[in-house]
Amino acid sequence: MKLLITGGAGFIGARLARTLLARSTLAGQRIDQLVLADQFAPPADLVADARVRAITGSLLEQCAGFAGARFDGVFHLASAVSGECELDFDLGMRSNLDSTRALLDALRKAGNTPRVVFSSSVAVFGPDPGKPLPAIVADDTLPAPQTSYGTQKLMCEHLIADMTRKGFVDGRAARLMTVTVRPGKPNAAASSFFSGVIREPLAGVEALCPVDASVSHPVLSPARTIDALIRIFEASREELNGRLALNLPALNVTVQQMLDALESVAGPKVRALVKFQRDERIAGIVANWPQGASAARAKALGLTADTSFEDIIRQYIADQKGSSP
Amino acid sequence: MKLLITGGAGFIGARLARTLLARSTLAGQRIDQLVLADQFAPPADLVADARVRAITGSLLEQCAGFAGARFDGVFHLASAVSGECELDFDLGMRSNLDSTRALLDALRKAGNTPRVVFSSSVAVFGPDPGKPLPAIVADDTLPAPQTSYGTQKLMCEHLIADMTRKGFVDGRAARLMTVTVRPGKPNAAASSFFSGVIREPLAGVEALCPVDASVSHPVLSPARTIDALIRIFEASREELNGRLALNLPALNVTVQQMLDALESVAGPKVRALVKFQRDERIAGIVANWPQGASAARAKALGLTADTSFEDIIRQYIADQKGSSP
Repeated sequence: MKLLITGGAGFIGARLARTLLARSTLAGQRIDQLVLADQFAPPADLVADARVRAITGSLLEQCAGFAGARFDGVFHLASAVSGECELDFDLGMRSNLDSTRALLDALRKAGNTPRVVFSSSVAVFGPDPGKPLPAIVADDTLPAPQTSYGTQKLMCEHLIADMTRKGFVDGRAARLMTVTVRPGKPNAAASSFFSGVIREPLAGVEALCPVDASVSHPVLSPARTIDALIRIFEASREELNGRLALNLPALNVTVQQMLDALESVAGPKVRALVKFQRDERIAGIVANWPQGASAARAKALGLTADTSFEDIIRQYIADQKGSSP
Repeated sequence: MKLLITGGAGFIGARLARTLLARSTLAGQRIDQLVLADQFAPPADLVADARVRAITGSLLEQCAGFAGARFDGVFHLASAVSGECELDFDLGMRSNLDSTRALLDALRKAGNTPRVVFSSSVAVFGPDPGKPLPAIVADDTLPAPQTSYGTQKLMCEHLIADMTRKGFVDGRAARLMTVTVRPGKPNAAASSFFSGVIREPLAGVEALCPVDASVSHPVLSPARTIDALIRIFEASREELNGRLALNLPALNVTVQQMLDALESVAGPKVRALVKFQRDERIAGIVANWPQGASAARAKALGLTADTSFEDIIRQYIADQKGSSP
């Protein structure tokens, strides 16, 4: 089979690619070709795999060429992140809505109804004006995004549902929780600090936490996120049992609990590297995010959250030693 | 003030225009100019009013010119209807999503945060796969459109909410119920027969009903629909008290009740002109529509549904005699 990962050179995309190549099959079929489309070149180990083809450039411009490729499956992960979409409305509309639509149009033109897993986000949820957001957002909580990023993700969820109903693609939308701990540098996502406050101290570097310790948030480790994307790809329409958008499992933790876990895994000196310095812009965005999420439908697919934040930190440390994809 | 009605030559648009011109004020301001944008020319009585300016052509092409116009308010009614969007996916995306986005972009460029009432639809609601639709859809029922038309309306609702949050426009989305009785000829809306089974018999013409008599549906008369659009335009953000999309009031009636009302107003011979001839395409679309709607938030704005379907028929007969706008 021929697969496409958009955002295939990103952290989640590259890790998903490694996992798929190591499995060598998906949904019972052998993976013959894996196309990684991204603005950047993928890591060298991926490029070295004979099954991988890397396409570098703007997704919006690449899409026209995808009609002829007739992919059997697509993981659509490419996205502008929440912080940049909030600063530049047009960038977000182009990168998230227009690119997704161009991709879906190309897949429709191919005419083979490919399976598509779209990376949506827990950011589709937000408080209704005049109403508090439920503490835990469920699969069927009424979305009310309070960011342009969340709005664009939600619009794409509905577009994918309609194009699936029409038989143009076989789509599903996985609402990613905040993936932590991400390696590398901070990015423009408003949620970036959920990784930074663990990653930087573990590297001996001071980290600033822009929100209060009491802030609660649904998170999931990279490994469980990849597992979920693959399981949701492989699920039959019957297994999905309902609408095509579903929450990924989440560990609902407070910043306080994250830092306690950091101390328990790495000691008090490491934890002391985290300083609180409120950033009103970030705190304002995060204040409109859910404090936690449930995922009954993902659970029915056998997916579960990490059992503790300590486990998530240990997974990150192991990853850094090169023992994970 | 300077107002724009898109779809301003259509049935609702022209009637809204007449009502606004007769009032001569909106939200406490004098109406100086009323621009009617439509693919077709507006009725002669509207063109004759010195305050009216008609612009004929494609909305998508007209939008660029709207940035310089600096409208104080917009009623965005132009839309491809449900039946044609279901037959031609690209037409619906262009007419409903792209045109709305181009309009909002132009209004944003104007820089004066104009008030915008968007005509959304009860078609945003549909049954979740594996779950029956609630018999009565409320303002906060989770939308799951089962038509491309409903999907496009819902995507626009979210776009307007986000652009309002960003301060680009001051938007609100009125979810129209099926407007009946519409005058004139049948159109490509799957709901067209909800007018046809009354209008045609009253004109002495046989009418075919494509669904069972037991089908229930939320309807509202033209006069109440216009009242609601105006009231929602005039509502402050505080009065809206919540999200920007809200259901219009509805009279929830079965086809049987509609025909009984026709008999009671116009006699058994008129009613006998309605024949049942099932149309699977129409019946399939209608089967995924709500059987009824509630409108708590519209009610809080003082809006109410027609008290009986007999009243709706009598209003139509009076309109035909020229006694209403």
